[in-house]
This record gives sequence, C-alpha cells and structure tokens, in this order.
Amino acid sequence: MTRYVDQSLEQVRTALLEMAGRVEEMIADANRALAERDSTLAESVILADPLIDAMEKRIDEDCLLLLALQEPKAIDFRCIIAIQKIVGELERMGDSAVNIAQGVLQLNAESPLEPRVDLPSLAEIARGMVRESLDSFVRKDAALARSVCERDDDADAVYHRLFGELVGMMRSSPGKVDRALHLLLAARNLERIADHATNVAEDVIFYLEAEDVRHSRPPSAIRALGANPPRPS
Amino acid sequence: MTRYVDQSLEQVRTALLEMAGRVEEMIADANRALAERDSTLAESVILADPLIDAMEKRIDEDCLLLLALQEPKAIDFRCIIAIQKIVGELERMGDSAVNIAQGVLQLNAESPLEPRVDLPSLAEIARGMVRESLDSFVRKDAALARSVCERDDDADAVYHRLFGELVGMMRSSPGKVDRALHLLLAARNLERIADHATNVAEDVIFYLEAEDVRHSRPPSAIRALGANPPRPS
Repeated sequence: MTRYVDQSLEQVRTALLEMAGRVEEMIADANRALAERDSTLAESVILADPLIDAMEKRIDEDCLLLLALQEPKAIDFRCIIAIQKIVGELERMGDSAVNIAQGVLQLNAESPLEPRVDLPSLAEIARGMVRESLDSFVRKDAALARSVCERDDDADAVYHRLFGELVGMMRSSPGKVDRALHLLLAARNLERIADHATNVAEDVIFYLEAEDVRHSRPPSAIRALGANPPRPS
Repeated sequence: MTRYVDQSLEQVRTALLEMAGRVEEMIADANRALAERDSTLAESVILADPLIDAMEKRIDEDCLLLLALQEPKAIDFRCIIAIQKIVGELERMGDSAVNIAQGVLQLNAESPLEPRVDLPSLAEIARGMVRESLDSFVRKDAALARSVCERDDDADAVYHRLFGELVGMMRSSPGKVDRALHLLLAARNLERIADHATNVAEDVIFYLEAEDVRHSRPPSAIRALGANPPRPS
C-alpha cells in the first residue's frame, strides 16, 4: 500500500522538476539572447520570472504541509528539506537569467563589442553544472553531485579570466566601458548560476547521505589572503 | 511546565541572534574598512567568514532536529522554518561583506578615487534595513517587517544613482576604471545586503502571520520593460 506521504512527495518532486525545466530554459534562452543579440528572446526571459516565483511559493507551501501534517521517514524528511532548498536555488538562478536578459537589452542598443569575449565557454560550464546537479537529484547519484561541486572552481577560473579581459578593454577603450561592463555583469551572473548549481549538489548530498558538506573547503577569499592577490569580488 | 520544544527553540533563537550580531559587525566593519581605507579591518572581515558558515550549519542542524523529533505547534513550526531561512540570508549577507572587504584590499593598493562617491549613504540604508529586519523578528513586529520591505526600493534607487556616477567616471577617465569598478561592485554588494534584509523581513511576516508575501509586487525588471529603459543588472 502506498502511503499518503509517498504520493504527495512524488507530486512535489514532479513540480520541482517542472520548475527546474523552466529555469534551465530561461538560462539557455538568456545565453542564446546574449550570443545572438536577440532582444525578443531576452524579453521572454524577463516575462517568465513571475511564473518561476509562483512555482517557488507553491512548492514551498506543499513542502511545509508535508512537514507539518505528515510523519515522514528520515529519508523523506531530508528529501523535503532538500527540495525546499533546491527550489530556492532555482528561483535565484531564474533571477540571474533575468539579469543577463536585462543586460542583453542594453547591449543591443549599441554595436557589438569587438574583439569578442568568450562568454559562451562560461555559459557552457554553468549550463552543464545546472543540468548535472538536477540529474544527481533525479538519479539519487551522490558521486555525480560531488563532481558538480568540484567543477565550481573551473567556473570561478573562467570568470576571473573574463573579468581580467573585460577590465583591460575598459581601461584601454573608454568607448567600450558600457558594453564591457554589461558583459562583465553577465559573466558574474553566470558564475552565480554555477554557485547555485553547486548549492543544489550540496543539498542532494545532504538528502542522500545526511551529510552537510557546505563550506567544507577553505573559502577562496581566505585562500587568497596572503598567498595570491585578492580576486574580483 | 515548559515544554522541551520551547526550551530548544529558545536556544536556537539565541544562537540565531548571536549569528546576526556577528554578521552585523562584519557589515559595519566592511563599510568602515571601505570608508577609512583600513586593510587590516578588511582582512578581519574575510577571516570571520568561516565562523559564520559554522554557525549557519549548526543552527540549521538544530532546526532540523526540532522539526524531526518534536511535535511543534503551528506557530513554533513557522518560527523554525523562518529561522532556517533567516540563517541562510545572514550567511549570504556575510558573503557580501567579505566581497566588499576583498574589494577594499584591491582599492587600497591604489590612491583614493576622486571625486568621492557617496557609498556611505547606501551603506547606511542597508545597515538600517538589516537592523530593523532582525528587530522585527525579536519584537514579533510585522508592521516593522513590512516597512523594511518597502525600503528596498530606496536602496535600489541609490544603487542605480551610484552605478550611473561610477560608469560615467569609467567612461571619462580610463585611469579610474579599476577603482570605479571595485566601488561599483561594493555598491552592488550593499544593494544585495538590502535585498537579503528584505527577505528576512518577508520571513518574519510569514512567521507571524502565516502569509507568504514574497514576490507580491511586480518585479522591477518587468516594471522596467516598456516603461523605462532597463536598469543595470
């Protein structure tokens, strides 16, 4: 006999995956709008945001009901808590996609910035991390979740390289300041999307193994102190 | 007779307020380090981060235990959920303070930027919002929490004004690009701290009134579409 909590939890998981699919689409569209200078697509990303917000509220509410009214087993309990946290991360990823889309509208008001800056490589890393963090939840694959966490440094490294390139452009060409700054903010948002994917992966590890792996490596800010020059904040 | 859950919840509340006090200190120190060009103080902010992370993990764990092992009343239940969310916001505020402190270290490697940009006014707004969002939790004051939410637009407006000033400087003085960019990122982090304070206030309203007020106003990105030119992302 299926318990009531199993059925309800299954519904919440389905709602989470639907929300995740929409957020992945927003990220992909924001990146395509950026690469192809497509303002219409950028606007569609911005207009998708309220739906994501509504989905977050709805799923959050359902999780609270499950926690309050049911007597979930320990693994269900951790699953519900993980879903709540993942939903928060997805909502923030959606916000980052909206920020990128807003930047696209401003960039498209001017001629393209030359030489081209390799934002697509950062977009590709972020996209892959989001995909695999969600896959690790669906497949209950803690090893995959751990591999996502390890790739956060790659995203940081590419972000810092792009940051340096764009600041160099701003320094040498005052006429490029606005466009370079919008690209820099887009890169920052991609790096944040990668951070959120890392958080999702950490939530999955907590769900599967009851282990809280957040902040388990020394923060990069502290690694930077003394050893290397501080990185862009 | 005091219920066990009351005692435990009181302990978690106390731990939350201790964490909040530390984060407020980090924000104040980061702002003072920025205003007074104090690299030692900036480094102390960066070094405080692991303590905040550890506090977050500990409180989160205690909340899970309370949720899992006890049978809290509805108001306690909402209080525990609110504490979990507030702790997450505090941790992110701490990260923003660290980002500002990292920027200070880079700014101090160069001569001060002239003319001065009025970051202290934004710092003051953010600091007040953080203080009052936490006060609204302590005093169970939903009206105060609502007033914090309303002030988020003020923080946004000041941020956009500073953003415009700093971009203008970058355009006209290539030699100022690095410093103006670090100040711009500091302003962005202050604006994020104000956002997190708003989220805390929303969590307090949920706790006190069982009402989820998140995203209840049309997002500024959508208000901007069509009506006004898009704002910095």
